[in-house]
Amino acid sequence: MFAVASRPEVVSLAGGMPNLAALPLEALSAEVADLVRREGQVALQYGSAQGVPALREQICEVMRLEGINADPGDVVVTVGSQMALDLVTRIFCDPGDVVLAEGPSYVGALGSFAAYQARVVHVGMDEHGLVPELLRDAVRTLAAQGITPKFLYTIPTFHNPAGVTLTLERRAEVLEICARYGIGVIEDNPYGLLGFSGRIYPALRSFDPGVIYLGSFSKTFASGLRVGWALVPPAVRDRLVLAAESATLCPPSFNQMLVSRYLEGHDWRSQVKTFTEAYRDRRDAMLSALETYLPDDCRWNVPDGGFYVWLTVPEGVDTKAMLPRAVTARVAYASGTGFYADGLGSRQLRLSYCYPTPERITEGVRRLGGVLEAELDVMRTFGSPARISPSRSGAVRGPQSPSPDTA
Amino acid sequence: MFAVASRPEVVSLAGGMPNLAALPLEALSAEVADLVRREGQVALQYGSAQGVPALREQICEVMRLEGINADPGDVVVTVGSQMALDLVTRIFCDPGDVVLAEGPSYVGALGSFAAYQARVVHVGMDEHGLVPELLRDAVRTLAAQGITPKFLYTIPTFHNPAGVTLTLERRAEVLEICARYGIGVIEDNPYGLLGFSGRIYPALRSFDPGVIYLGSFSKTFASGLRVGWALVPPAVRDRLVLAAESATLCPPSFNQMLVSRYLEGHDWRSQVKTFTEAYRDRRDAMLSALETYLPDDCRWNVPDGGFYVWLTVPEGVDTKAMLPRAVTARVAYASGTGFYADGLGSRQLRLSYCYPTPERITEGVRRLGGVLEAELDVMRTFGSPARISPSRSGAVRGPQSPSPDTA
Repeated sequence: MFAVASRPEVVSLAGGMPNLAALPLEALSAEVADLVRREGQVALQYGSAQGVPALREQICEVMRLEGINADPGDVVVTVGSQMALDLVTRIFCDPGDVVLAEGPSYVGALGSFAAYQARVVHVGMDEHGLVPELLRDAVRTLAAQGITPKFLYTIPTFHNPAGVTLTLERRAEVLEICARYGIGVIEDNPYGLLGFSGRIYPALRSFDPGVIYLGSFSKTFASGLRVGWALVPPAVRDRLVLAAESATLCPPSFNQMLVSRYLEGHDWRSQVKTFTEAYRDRRDAMLSALETYLPDDCRWNVPDGGFYVWLTVPEGVDTKAMLPRAVTARVAYASGTGFYADGLGSRQLRLSYCYPTPERITEGVRRLGGVLEAELDVMRTFGSPARISPSRSGAVRGPQSPSPDTA
Repeated sequence: MFAVASRPEVVSLAGGMPNLAALPLEALSAEVADLVRREGQVALQYGSAQGVPALREQICEVMRLEGINADPGDVVVTVGSQMALDLVTRIFCDPGDVVLAEGPSYVGALGSFAAYQARVVHVGMDEHGLVPELLRDAVRTLAAQGITPKFLYTIPTFHNPAGVTLTLERRAEVLEICARYGIGVIEDNPYGLLGFSGRIYPALRSFDPGVIYLGSFSKTFASGLRVGWALVPPAVRDRLVLAAESATLCPPSFNQMLVSRYLEGHDWRSQVKTFTEAYRDRRDAMLSALETYLPDDCRWNVPDGGFYVWLTVPEGVDTKAMLPRAVTARVAYASGTGFYADGLGSRQLRLSYCYPTPERITEGVRRLGGVLEAELDVMRTFGSPARISPSRSGAVRGPQSPSPDTA
């Protein structure tokens, strides 16, 4: 299935691969050549488990854009922020422990939680992100069972997959709830600098130094270098470094030094702006195509940044069951079920606009529209499920908030 | 302590950093520049969790030198072989499970075993490597307690830290014992191609496709790229790939493609020969200095490859307690206690000859000799411990087998 979906004739709206077309390869080529020539004996050698000190200082400058005031000594460089997430989960979770996460949530986080046998309790979102009332409800319900969640895992800004952003008011509220109930917060923020309005949201970590913050150069520079990081409270740092040492001895010096040189010698903020403009064009192409080609009773969000549109299809359509037929029609997406630990999401799917060209996006959505129409035709013909009716689903075609996870 | 030991005036015989002085940096610089220029869009992008297919094929060619006949589909590329070891431990071990390992054993392996709360039972070695009779004894003792070890972790060739190599006869015997008692075998082989006689030992995996084999380019090419691998039976492969995806999503494409180009376009076998010759010179310098400068009652092995000499000091000397005094005398080593999970090793230490120049090695050993003489002087003066006497320790100065872990 994955092999078929990877064929060039299939428009993949499934993956989260950043678009690297705008990278200045000639300049990078010269940079990396110089790195090997001048500093090869260090770059090709083992390094510190915590990461290259110069890069950790630069990471603090990057985070300052989001209002974070951090000490380089509290930064741990990892092989992508996935590794940081995986190790933090290892440190905090024993089998059976409960963690809170938005519903839907990042599939790679759910993978790590499953690997350590943590139980995920999802908390619903609306167009303003995680709903504080639902968070409070979830915490109280768990408390009544004698359970304190180990942490809340959240992507407050340009959420993957929901595409929404937590408002400032709610940021304060979410932190307040977690503080009151003694629940740690893990803030995953790979997309924070990719806002289409140019606005940069203050990170949760900027309000509370107890927050564990995960960052990455995968979306702002190059994913294939696998350079991410965690900013952690001092009490967690030593355990994280020890776990990182056990996991990989050290992150690759070569990759870290290349990122460090890139941040030092190139106008990386202007490069991020170039990336973001490309993503905005692609988002626009996708939204326009969704309006044009999707049948009634579809709902989706309008992302202000990041990579994703979260789509709710008409009742009765099962996005997981439909996927092989979509791939046959030469379009791929990520079924919503992968973003829930509890079996929900079969009426949702994630569309990524990050990688294909606007033309391919338009064509992909056109094909998806055809596939959905065909599904609805079959349902109408065979009357299954009979409960589909305009009176129940309403005239909800068009951009809307993501459905809460109870949908 | 580590900070002091890292000062340039201290001769460090402690670390296991490969000597990269012989790397052809100009050629590598041109290679990596071309990689970014021509294939940057792939090299800087996410890749497969299992690793780049072309590299996995080349890895099979590398392993063929050790008699291994493998399918690239069973190779999983990891961020150094440490990551493979960590993930295999994660897959097989629940807290409290028992694993077998040579005594002494690789400190990074002991770290991963501890991270997953596995209990290590050490099996003794002599100058021919792991002693099969001791392995059988350990297995039987555990069986009597109703315990089957999850696996035997072994470094059969140019052992870290003991410097010894398992004979061919014993390879068969060890595999036979493990097969009979249903114990998996993890063969860690980072040094296999670094033999001073030019001889390449057949890997355990070459005799038994059920063996999990861990390999690395850290010692044959460049440790700072963090490219290692596991060759696993098909039944383990999917679980390992899933665990790797959870751990880092994918290993860095960039690093893998650089290694692949290096293997393809450079005479890497001749480069390994150059490395090995440098290590042999350094070993010779160390052995000669040990003969010259060490006090009586010291014993060490004569390694045929790899990076390490394992030294047993006179009775009464505690290598861990002595280390600060050695660093003050501007020489550092790795105390033997780090290579045991059970508190042994205080009369042993590991000396690495891989990184410093022969002149520095000689000077470092001269300093170590002085430190040891001073320890012995204090012991003689204060009569503590009184049990030191030539009649008990014998005239054992000079190259000998590594002490069994009961010493």
